[in-house]
Amino acid sequence: MRARDGWIAGASTADQLAVRRHNLAVVMDHLRLSGPMSRARIAAETGLNKATVSSLVAELGERGLVAEGETERGAVGRPGLVIELDTTVHVSLGAEISVDYLSVLAMNLRGDAVAERRIALDASRLSPEEILARLAELIRDVLGDLADGTTVVGLTVAIPGLVESVSGIVHAAPNLGWREVRVADLLHELLDDPGIAILLDNEANLAALAELDLRGTDAPDEFILLMGGVGIGGGLVTAGQLLRGACGFAGEVGHLQVTPSGETCRCGRRGCWETVIGLHALLALAAGADDVVRDPSVDLDERLGELRARAERGDRRTLDAIATITAALVSGAGTLLNIFNPRLLVLGGYFAVLSPWIEPGLREALHREVFAPKSGGCRIEFSGLGYSAAVRGGAVQAASAVFDNPSAFPLTPLVRTVQEVGPA
Amino acid sequence: MRARDGWIAGASTADQLAVRRHNLAVVMDHLRLSGPMSRARIAAETGLNKATVSSLVAELGERGLVAEGETERGAVGRPGLVIELDTTVHVSLGAEISVDYLSVLAMNLRGDAVAERRIALDASRLSPEEILARLAELIRDVLGDLADGTTVVGLTVAIPGLVESVSGIVHAAPNLGWREVRVADLLHELLDDPGIAILLDNEANLAALAELDLRGTDAPDEFILLMGGVGIGGGLVTAGQLLRGACGFAGEVGHLQVTPSGETCRCGRRGCWETVIGLHALLALAAGADDVVRDPSVDLDERLGELRARAERGDRRTLDAIATITAALVSGAGTLLNIFNPRLLVLGGYFAVLSPWIEPGLREALHREVFAPKSGGCRIEFSGLGYSAAVRGGAVQAASAVFDNPSAFPLTPLVRTVQEVGPA
Repeated sequence: MRARDGWIAGASTADQLAVRRHNLAVVMDHLRLSGPMSRARIAAETGLNKATVSSLVAELGERGLVAEGETERGAVGRPGLVIELDTTVHVSLGAEISVDYLSVLAMNLRGDAVAERRIALDASRLSPEEILARLAELIRDVLGDLADGTTVVGLTVAIPGLVESVSGIVHAAPNLGWREVRVADLLHELLDDPGIAILLDNEANLAALAELDLRGTDAPDEFILLMGGVGIGGGLVTAGQLLRGACGFAGEVGHLQVTPSGETCRCGRRGCWETVIGLHALLALAAGADDVVRDPSVDLDERLGELRARAERGDRRTLDAIATITAALVSGAGTLLNIFNPRLLVLGGYFAVLSPWIEPGLREALHREVFAPKSGGCRIEFSGLGYSAAVRGGAVQAASAVFDNPSAFPLTPLVRTVQEVGPA
Repeated sequence: MRARDGWIAGASTADQLAVRRHNLAVVMDHLRLSGPMSRARIAAETGLNKATVSSLVAELGERGLVAEGETERGAVGRPGLVIELDTTVHVSLGAEISVDYLSVLAMNLRGDAVAERRIALDASRLSPEEILARLAELIRDVLGDLADGTTVVGLTVAIPGLVESVSGIVHAAPNLGWREVRVADLLHELLDDPGIAILLDNEANLAALAELDLRGTDAPDEFILLMGGVGIGGGLVTAGQLLRGACGFAGEVGHLQVTPSGETCRCGRRGCWETVIGLHALLALAAGADDVVRDPSVDLDERLGELRARAERGDRRTLDAIATITAALVSGAGTLLNIFNPRLLVLGGYFAVLSPWIEPGLREALHREVFAPKSGGCRIEFSGLGYSAAVRGGAVQAASAVFDNPSAFPLTPLVRTVQEVGPA
């Protein structure tokens, strides 16, 4: 992700306030992307002058957004105390509604998870209202885990489907069986109007945000994340920005038609990519109907752990299943590389769990699939974030309210202390 | 496309020059997107003050970039003379190397074609050097058509393949049979070092630029152009920018694999989309090998005109061929709509010529192919630019040198008068 440029204050007095607000965000963003550093280094690296930086840091400190840390190591000249993002006051929340589990994560401003809870769930057996009631309970649990006096700056909920972020409506999430569910409104009610912004986003979009956030200044501007789960999610980043399309419906890579006469998808059409490489397709190839790895009441981590153990033991059926999935993964990933020419392709979800068996075949075959020489220069990586990717991305997105407009914290009605939204 | 914002001049004297250069570009851009208007309206609509606008217009006039036109019609208050882009001094050139033809267009700053030439060509029978020699000849012919004293500001060449714009190298253009051809260097030699910048770009990218340019301020930020020719080119616009990818290789939609066991493509792989909806696939379905519509020595316009006439007469084989192509067009276009969620899909090339027979089936079927409701809000249009789309886009791109940096014209060595690069 790109850091903001420092502005030089203009002549007009009317602009001073806007410039100050912008410069506060520049300092926050710089600390987020580049880590703790002295005031002098902030000044040198942002182009802001030292006196301005001192004044900005003082204001951010008063707002509980930055704090002084240790003396800067290895600095030339007089050592200065480093300024770092304050991890003690603000947290942002991410939540995920998945087909197999619910998950909630609280993250401090530096990106550390300070509380995380996950429960297994068979979403196909529950109504949206029942699922949201459980999610609200899980959110209350996580809030209960936080230190007293913590300020929650927002919540973003990851959904495996088409969402309208601002209105908080899920238009279609076929793998949940949801259509037109008012998730944000329902959560506001279930949490007794917590006074925080509740936004929705697609789970793969949020997982992509988490991957970008993790890479800081090294994050590539052209980037694709593929999340392997019951559905196949795509987070597509071009020119440093998530591709959202005209109505926010971009990135529906799971519904690429790969076998026109194939299996009927949960979306109602035939031969979608996720019918051949989704988790259910893998499990149906790898195990009989009564096998524990296909039991939705067992935690997904455990089931994938078992599958991984079988692959490690060299179990033929497991390895053949992974090889079949890999071939179909290559075909769709090749399409995406031909269209996007990304610098980096990251595979998350179950693809990452099974990476030792997916990776060799994928690398070799993708090379042949892609029209541009050497896969157009695309690197392939497997996500290290596991099933936390989407919740982490949700928390990153919720935290952006602070980073985009630090002068609004902690003074706006969007912000309440944990006591107000805490356990009922 | 988005207009530039007007800057308010900063306090720093060192910035004054940069601000002035920027503001010159703001005025040029505003006239390009919104058409002729009075100084007062320029000031009102850009936010620049009137005295600044007068001074900027005076400088642009001296540089031969704007001129005074008629009195503004319907203006409230004292009528002012309108300022318009000067069409008498500068032209930009676009050229296209296609499988079936070569084409060159000269465009004035207002976007009017002032000279255009096209010759039929069977690229498969000629070497790159032979083709470029013919193109250089065609460029000289177009230059010969221009009025004395015309200044050429640049040339951009459209190529059906992977190009490196800055170095001017074509990496791979399978339908031409080209690999690693130094097009810009060779053209510089063939034109006796004309002293103008020669850039390359993918033909579909340039056609997309032409479509955006045509729509001015109404151009959508999320937009896909599909060009139907021997190859299938895609120009993909997201957030108002052409998607180029990490190395400029994005948009290779013709090589989406749609039938894994299908025909071998010119790129060496199997079942690429262009093997089923490219021009050769259409013609092979529609006519026998000896039919005139399949004779590459006949101008493509004529052959497509004949095909269109047969469709109008209700010729069964022609109509069946178009229906087969339309079904395969829907499948790939659905993939692109699921990935990009564009506001607008424009179909150009032969798709536009045959639009009366493609459109009805396409609209209905695409609706079913797309996961988002109502095709994600995507409109479908057919291009009105015909085979001029890519050359026109080339000229638009070449002209951007003037619009991005008007203060460099006509004072840099990039610019020569037509006499210097004129007919040998």
